[in-house]
Amino acid sequence: MNLDDFRKNGYAVVDWICDYLEQVEKYPVKARVKPGDIKKQLPGTPPARGEEMDTIFQDFKDIIIPGITHWQHPGWFAYFPANNSPESILAEFLTAGLGAQCMVWATSPAATELEEVVAGWMRQMLGLPPEWSGVIQDTASSATLCALITAREKATDFKVNEQGMEKNLTVYVSHEAHSSAEKGAKIAGFGRENIRYIPTDEKFALQAEELERQIVEDKARGFIPTAVIATLGTTSSGAFDPVPDIGKICQRRKIWLHVDAAYAGPAAILPEKRHLFQGLENVDSFVFNPHKWLLTNFDCSLYYVRDPELLTRSLAVDPEYLKTAHDKEVKNYRDWGIQLGRRFRALKLWFVLRSYGVKGLQEFLRKHISLAEFFKNLIAEEDNFELVAPAELGLVCFRFNDGQKESLELDEFNQELLQRINGREEVFLTHTLLRDNFTLRMAIGQRTTEEKHVTRAWEIIKEEAQKMQP
Amino acid sequence: MNLDDFRKNGYAVVDWICDYLEQVEKYPVKARVKPGDIKKQLPGTPPARGEEMDTIFQDFKDIIIPGITHWQHPGWFAYFPANNSPESILAEFLTAGLGAQCMVWATSPAATELEEVVAGWMRQMLGLPPEWSGVIQDTASSATLCALITAREKATDFKVNEQGMEKNLTVYVSHEAHSSAEKGAKIAGFGRENIRYIPTDEKFALQAEELERQIVEDKARGFIPTAVIATLGTTSSGAFDPVPDIGKICQRRKIWLHVDAAYAGPAAILPEKRHLFQGLENVDSFVFNPHKWLLTNFDCSLYYVRDPELLTRSLAVDPEYLKTAHDKEVKNYRDWGIQLGRRFRALKLWFVLRSYGVKGLQEFLRKHISLAEFFKNLIAEEDNFELVAPAELGLVCFRFNDGQKESLELDEFNQELLQRINGREEVFLTHTLLRDNFTLRMAIGQRTTEEKHVTRAWEIIKEEAQKMQP
Repeated sequence: MNLDDFRKNGYAVVDWICDYLEQVEKYPVKARVKPGDIKKQLPGTPPARGEEMDTIFQDFKDIIIPGITHWQHPGWFAYFPANNSPESILAEFLTAGLGAQCMVWATSPAATELEEVVAGWMRQMLGLPPEWSGVIQDTASSATLCALITAREKATDFKVNEQGMEKNLTVYVSHEAHSSAEKGAKIAGFGRENIRYIPTDEKFALQAEELERQIVEDKARGFIPTAVIATLGTTSSGAFDPVPDIGKICQRRKIWLHVDAAYAGPAAILPEKRHLFQGLENVDSFVFNPHKWLLTNFDCSLYYVRDPELLTRSLAVDPEYLKTAHDKEVKNYRDWGIQLGRRFRALKLWFVLRSYGVKGLQEFLRKHISLAEFFKNLIAEEDNFELVAPAELGLVCFRFNDGQKESLELDEFNQELLQRINGREEVFLTHTLLRDNFTLRMAIGQRTTEEKHVTRAWEIIKEEAQKMQP
Repeated sequence: MNLDDFRKNGYAVVDWICDYLEQVEKYPVKARVKPGDIKKQLPGTPPARGEEMDTIFQDFKDIIIPGITHWQHPGWFAYFPANNSPESILAEFLTAGLGAQCMVWATSPAATELEEVVAGWMRQMLGLPPEWSGVIQDTASSATLCALITAREKATDFKVNEQGMEKNLTVYVSHEAHSSAEKGAKIAGFGRENIRYIPTDEKFALQAEELERQIVEDKARGFIPTAVIATLGTTSSGAFDPVPDIGKICQRRKIWLHVDAAYAGPAAILPEKRHLFQGLENVDSFVFNPHKWLLTNFDCSLYYVRDPELLTRSLAVDPEYLKTAHDKEVKNYRDWGIQLGRRFRALKLWFVLRSYGVKGLQEFLRKHISLAEFFKNLIAEEDNFELVAPAELGLVCFRFNDGQKESLELDEFNQELLQRINGREEVFLTHTLLRDNFTLRMAIGQRTTEEKHVTRAWEIIKEEAQKMQP
């Protein structure tokens, strides 16, 4: 494609995205296809000769789009949101156009320095300790893995990197921690048996006294308690672990404390929610995802550390072909994460922060939180439904509950209810288990979700529940 | 920004990218800035209120662009290329517009199935074994880490994931292997002391007999040889390790063989270069990067495995909130890599493969290989310069050599020569050490690089060398 064709097709793509975002509500939220439906429409062998962009773009619309699940649909209440925004999309477009690979400062100084600046802005906005340093990673999975590796090295005075993993290093998480904690601990060589799952309280928050009890027991048995992963806003229910208490334990016992605020993090920019983020002064590392609930299209995960020297010492490898003249004066973010290569992710976050401003982002978050309040009240007014967990932010966990508190029949009922709700194709909710009960998750946080969408979701939920009752 | 503004600004961004790609040659290849130059132009605090997109876009042009190192410049001969292409840029734009997070099949069936299809196409194009399965990852660093983890689990019958890393698992690479091998081995808990660096031959290729000798010695000492990482196209010099011989050793001794063809992989689509990729039938995993030398903007790394069951069993964690109705029938790529979240990377590769076709991509690669031949001949004709390594593809390693073969003065001379060449701002080359000698790397592979750019680079190199001679 020459540049004239690029310009022509570029305009067409702008128009298509514009129409898509305007009309996304007309699509079924969740792709209507069955396994194999898309694949069977695509040739099994690559084309020998180049094809026209018109043909390719038409196939995109005809074959690919029907197989897309529409994360930007206002009826998106599944998992957590993964917002994009016009600003962020344009910045990602520019990033692709520049095609810079930002592994070290020299390979695009502006990318590194803008990343420092926006990480600093976000640190101020969230009220994180001023001495923390930030880096943009792809996902919280990678950030949590970095935390576990750094913790492992700190606990062993960097011996694991040299001599290999020790068998007696332990990691502490609650039963409600995200699966990336287990995955990261396995990757880093801890082993699943060295992960201690700490019980949670009635709000699904980690019990600090149980944590300390387990740590004491492990020490007595010769283990080296290495890292605690606390969650602010768990995936299942949005629970907040008691970081102030956990932080004191970790501080006293010299254990790395990593905080996973992947979803909830942005809420720290709201003064009225700041109380949920107390105790960070004793935290060693912290991750949250602007690509979830902060209008920055996936991927963009912000990872903060108290001591960047520990992080880079844990991850740096220094081959000759990557050495540059300024290595001593600059940040080379290649040593701040798992991968060597890096996209210029700071640009889209910068576009979003500047275009919305702090006040604009606060309004954006408050809208969802108030919609979640609205939805909670709808449930509270209905005898047949119950709230299953506190909902501090945009995630509401609930289930159909016909007067009984627990029974297998209710689990099956809710499971079928969820299928029927999603079958209506106007909304998409997902599920979890809370206290072993099948629970519906209504995660409100999509950019274009308004009160009418929440009202409509509630109508559908009630209608389907009524249809199922004898 | 509303959608009308998005459309207007979208057109402006299309125009800007168009102009950028057309005029990129006018910029200094390497950003002219000093450390801190960009940062000091940016406010230290975030804006309270939103700003106009015009202002933000203007700052992008005035502040950010002068700090960009231009990877798409035709004078880009540094590191390896990281091509983009108009097709790929448009697809990345669409991907951002859709904003789909493709962690499992259900969260966008088309993304998963298109990924299977394009991975299959590329497998055929490269002549890889038909039974291999592919997945798109972000970088070869992540893919190599996956290989090391899978090897670790296979060697221990999945005990490491359960009980933690063993101290006696060893990894084998040549001295010329990429730094991601060491980084991955450290992350996965092997420890640097359990990495065996095997000597290379006069072409910088791993010596298979030395590998076998080391494996035998390790076994006798109670180690468990776990993984060999062979490279096809090393970073320093483009060397090809003898995979057929290594494969036989690994097959006989049941050791995981991972092949890192990050840079050179695309050349396997050329019949005349296919001989460099022999012996893959005994390989367990293989990575190459379409984001380097195949027109697909960073990031897009293809990872192939012989046995996907071993990969997913090594990486799968299965929390309730990620379970879907079709989990038994579909590929959930979340279990094929380090991260849970995934962008829709298959789209850009599909656009590139269809728009160029196999023949178009072959022409693209042949152009660079013939330019590298041209450059090699220029060096061979000059008494003062020498080729330091064979150049099979687009990477040519050379140095100024004033009749002498080795001396510290020559190292200093070449170091200064490189600085002077890059100081001219028309071309950007990087360096490496080969046999401890400071060596210049001329990596030819940028989309728009033509013979005139190579000729110009050679003029600059010679001019600067002449200026430095007394």
